[in-house]
Amino acid sequence: MGIAKPLPSYLSQRYHGWHATTYSENQAWYRRLADEGQRPRAMVISCCDSRVHVTAIFGAEQGEFFIHRNIANLVPPYEPDGNQHGTSAAVEYAVTALKVSNIIVMGHSLCGGVKGCYDMCSGHAPELEETSSFVGRWMDLLRPGYEKLPEGDEAARVAELELEAVRTSINNLMTFPYVAEAVENNSLSLHGVHHDIKEGVLTVLDGESGRFFPV
Amino acid sequence: MGIAKPLPSYLSQRYHGWHATTYSENQAWYRRLADEGQRPRAMVISCCDSRVHVTAIFGAEQGEFFIHRNIANLVPPYEPDGNQHGTSAAVEYAVTALKVSNIIVMGHSLCGGVKGCYDMCSGHAPELEETSSFVGRWMDLLRPGYEKLPEGDEAARVAELELEAVRTSINNLMTFPYVAEAVENNSLSLHGVHHDIKEGVLTVLDGESGRFFPV
Amino acid sequence: MGIAKPLPSYLSQRYHGWHATTYSENQAWYRRLADEGQRPRAMVISCCDSRVHVTAIFGAEQGEFFIHRNIANLVPPYEPDGNQHGTSAAVEYAVTALKVSNIIVMGHSLCGGVKGCYDMCSGHAPELEETSSFVGRWMDLLRPGYEKLPEGDEAARVAELELEAVRTSINNLMTFPYVAEAVENNSLSLHGVHHDIKEGVLTVLDGESGRFFPV
Amino acid sequence: MGIAKPLPSYLSQRYHGWHATTYSENQAWYRRLADEGQRPRAMVISCCDSRVHVTAIFGAEQGEFFIHRNIANLVPPYEPDGNQHGTSAAVEYAVTALKVSNIIVMGHSLCGGVKGCYDMCSGHAPELEETSSFVGRWMDLLRPGYEKLPEGDEAARVAELELEAVRTSINNLMTFPYVAEAVENNSLSLHGVHHDIKEGVLTVLDGESGRFFPV
Repeated sequence: MGIAKPLPSYLSQRYHGWHATTYSENQAWYRRLADEGQRPRAMVISCCDSRVHVTAIFGAEQGEFFIHRNIANLVPPYEPDGNQHGTSAAVEYAVTALKVSNIIVMGHSLCGGVKGCYDMCSGHAPELEETSSFVGRWMDLLRPGYEKLPEGDEAARVAELELEAVRTSINNLMTFPYVAEAVENNSLSLHGVHHDIKEGVLTVLDGESGRFFPV
Repeated sequence: MGIAKPLPSYLSQRYHGWHATTYSENQAWYRRLADEGQRPRAMVISCCDSRVHVTAIFGAEQGEFFIHRNIANLVPPYEPDGNQHGTSAAVEYAVTALKVSNIIVMGHSLCGGVKGCYDMCSGHAPELEETSSFVGRWMDLLRPGYEKLPEGDEAARVAELELEAVRTSINNLMTFPYVAEAVENNSLSLHGVHHDIKEGVLTVLDGESGRFFPV
Repeated sequence: MGIAKPLPSYLSQRYHGWHATTYSENQAWYRRLADEGQRPRAMVISCCDSRVHVTAIFGAEQGEFFIHRNIANLVPPYEPDGNQHGTSAAVEYAVTALKVSNIIVMGHSLCGGVKGCYDMCSGHAPELEETSSFVGRWMDLLRPGYEKLPEGDEAARVAELELEAVRTSINNLMTFPYVAEAVENNSLSLHGVHHDIKEGVLTVLDGESGRFFPV
Repeated sequence: MGIAKPLPSYLSQRYHGWHATTYSENQAWYRRLADEGQRPRAMVISCCDSRVHVTAIFGAEQGEFFIHRNIANLVPPYEPDGNQHGTSAAVEYAVTALKVSNIIVMGHSLCGGVKGCYDMCSGHAPELEETSSFVGRWMDLLRPGYEKLPEGDEAARVAELELEAVRTSINNLMTFPYVAEAVENNSLSLHGVHHDIKEGVLTVLDGESGRFFPV
């Protein structure tokens, strides 16, 4: 931490702007959220990608969503092996401690992680196959999805793999016993969506057909 | 994914509102972001907590920040063992692929993950010690921080542990060879901040003293 | 009014979203409503409780319902004493000026006002007995309902008192001469319903038996 | 209540539709709201007018707003005289029991109550002057507003009186000791808005100038 630098001034400036306006206008609410704790209605799992602005799309206010963001919005299968699983920890906390009512997995177009997975699986990114590649090992989670891809041109297959990432996360969520139980007794529901960055369009996973339809 | 449900209608409605206003007003920019790819200036690592609204605080517009959110904004040390490390994957992608200029680790007050770590380390949360506890195993990352805590009352020690989470992440970031190298040659700088939810105040880690000062 | 603050930004944002979608899609209808005046088919009297979403339950579109909401959906008896009676003013306007065809009194489960009345009448809320308690004096309207409660455990008695609030309002409505007259000549009918928040179930008051049945 | 009739079938039908869709999709959340109680962020005081659709404009979800609706969105001054004051009871409950962070008074164009007040005060509605007129006595609250109206044509004066209704309510709210105290210590803020039904436009009261500006 000896290396830590002061905050870039453009960020200090924005923070001061936020404090003088949004914070100030909502101070009473923020204080209540501090005093009484959070009670988010939903968990959102989305990608780190800077173009995915989940708080804007869903008009998210402070206190509404418990948000986990990782590369390619992936949830690994339940694997309580005593190792560190950051995503699984977030899921566990949201479901067992916060008791959220919804988990929304949001995929998106032009996902670098998904594209990397595609390149790796099709033999065009040997560096991602290396043991030391964190991105490669993380994207291994989507390998079974790659195997299922229909024939077609690359663009269509990559786009399909993005949808597969959402389906994979939904399926893996159900391997967590507390998720399955909460879904079973209707205290939790799972939702898959895909966000097209260029057109801004949101499509929703239909559980029965496995296809995505406009909202 | 057979379990996936339609999107709750209040979210569909908000999405349509967003598309008709924010998206519509910024369509040209979104299209460029789609065509030319993202080029975020900074990576932010913050907590999943619903009360931490990093995009609001930093006035984040689409395309500006690559955002990873996990429990207690922790970065594990560099451990290229071939296992899945979601946070390390995000750091690797941000630094080696996106070449961000800044990484900002944002801690916050009233953090449930940090409190859980405190309770676990002080012997009051045996359930978090179990092998199967993802939250417990994740918070193991902060155990060394707990060991360093000065004497004092619990509230002060928990608050200090929140700061320690930020320092730990900064220190662990430097164990990644590409992070250290980029910091060395001044193409990347690291920043630690702490956000007080109740008062909205942001404090910044001073690398030299290791203390946090108002921005 | 010197104290009035700007609208919290999340509400401005939602308003803009509404204007760009719902308003925009229905502009012609809104303009007719503005030019020709409202012509609501029914008046709804419901509680202020944030969990009672009468417009959602009844799919209420703009212009359909004249809605009065107060604590515990109570209508006082006709008392033209020259004092301010907000609820009576709403009833008078709905029946004599708007000539609505239906008045629907909607009670609900877990009503804080009804619970307060129960506590007050059973001697457990002395603060509500004070002259200065607006909630207490308002809930005096339901005192006769409390007196009629059958023996039983508290939960059952409180639930019954919620139904009694609906019956009381229906009975008091009939003390308004223009209500009685309109009911008499079949130009107005009265309806009592109870909404269970947890299960979402609506039950309807059967005038003959005085009991509530599923819709 | 012997007079109570079954629910009109179009309403039963809509209720069943709501239960099968919206309720069903959000069941988990509704159950939590039932189990844990409401925690609305804001109170809204608006008119009963069927064309004022506050839940739509603000994208109101179950649990978000404590809503009181009366004729002309008026709040009387604090008058703890032991009589029934429904609006004051709602304010008392919202501020002292629910501890809402915001109170939003929403006026609107083409308000029948305000027009009635104007006609009464200008001598054109003698029936509203009668002791037995609940609407007249209720609109007495706005008489001081009428006295302040600038010269001008009737339409402009009536429109100004609508704004005056909002200002009056804000001012009267401050006569409630717990409102004033909460405003003083920043745990509550008051907001005045006016909704134009025809154009759908929202304007906001600026506390300093007393004028309304577009949002």
